[in-house]
Amino acid sequence: MYARDVPKLWTETIDAHRAAVRDAALDAMAALVAEQGLVSLTMSQIAEKAGVGRATLYKYFPDAQAVLTAWHERQITAHLDRLTAAADPAEPAFVRLQAALQTFAQIQHHSARHHGGELATLLHRGEHVDRAQQRLREFVRKLIAEAAEDGDLRHDVPADELAGYCLHALTAAGTLGSPDAVHRLVAVTLAGLNAPAPLDRGGAAHD
Amino acid sequence: MYARDVPKLWTETIDAHRAAVRDAALDAMAALVAEQGLVSLTMSQIAEKAGVGRATLYKYFPDAQAVLTAWHERQITAHLDRLTAAADPAEPAFVRLQAALQTFAQIQHHSARHHGGELATLLHRGEHVDRAQQRLREFVRKLIAEAAEDGDLRHDVPADELAGYCLHALTAAGTLGSPDAVHRLVAVTLAGLNAPAPLDRGGAAHD
Repeated sequence: MYARDVPKLWTETIDAHRAAVRDAALDAMAALVAEQGLVSLTMSQIAEKAGVGRATLYKYFPDAQAVLTAWHERQITAHLDRLTAAADPAEPAFVRLQAALQTFAQIQHHSARHHGGELATLLHRGEHVDRAQQRLREFVRKLIAEAAEDGDLRHDVPADELAGYCLHALTAAGTLGSPDAVHRLVAVTLAGLNAPAPLDRGGAAHD
Repeated sequence: MYARDVPKLWTETIDAHRAAVRDAALDAMAALVAEQGLVSLTMSQIAEKAGVGRATLYKYFPDAQAVLTAWHERQITAHLDRLTAAADPAEPAFVRLQAALQTFAQIQHHSARHHGGELATLLHRGEHVDRAQQRLREFVRKLIAEAAEDGDLRHDVPADELAGYCLHALTAAGTLGSPDAVHRLVAVTLAGLNAPAPLDRGGAAHD
């Protein structure tokens, strides 16, 4: 019995060690980017900051871009957990959407302060769509589609486009100075999801 | 007379040469970023791609980050010229705002395809606010303030916050697949600027 357990413990130790090295590399990269920006970020710098050898780092990541992508995935996965937790499943989709977008805006507001804007911007661009990014957009898209079916928001624009609009608009939270301003941004963003009035205001006033 | 003209011509030639080196460096940087991303971008790579010596490049820019910032300024200045040209001064502020935001969204849509998403994201973040960026936001802020005074959009949120909302929301155009989708994004973004209805829809339906 003990003998049988040894390989399992050994594997767990190796896995824990690997996860620790990986996390150290990602933390190091985030710290370096906050200090100097993304430009000229090198594997040597990341290894030094993470306290691991350069050869070790290369066993985990082929290049600095791969470290960035892995950091990005870790961030979005953490954010998704928070967004999911913010939405009470007993509430209607529109209320869950409000809660999720408010949480997302708060994350943007705080992470722009802690990681610098440069990294945060990379979270929500088409060119960098990866699995985590897709999951985030899909999470918001589903809430929007459900709320539209409830008649609580506009039907004239595909839910996926509205999800992209929300996630981009709310990154503006990173430039805002106060929690009140973040709250106003969420209200303005949600207003964009409202069904348009029968007469378009701008057209009616000026055509 | 000829003798007097020589120094002026000479100066103009040097200025033209300097502008050409500068432009070559910025073009090289944009091409490199489109190929490999921002990460690990070095002065040596930029110099090689621009066809100038490394020592020459260092006479113009202290580091790769400075090349990025200069590129960014050049881009936004060009964009501002297009936004200003898009707005017919005879039209009311709201109509000029519509035209400017439509143009901005189109620029985002095209530049995401040509330069890759990574660079475009750097155009609109708080950490990278420079003079060009401030001018862009100020241009939109003024149109919004004027349109709000005309009674054509909401008064309950400061114009500067609404300008930030618009510019961020419209960067979603970089992820969109068609001109129609870009048009819908502009309509959704403008809807966020509408005065809220007397009764909040979400609240009324679910509270």
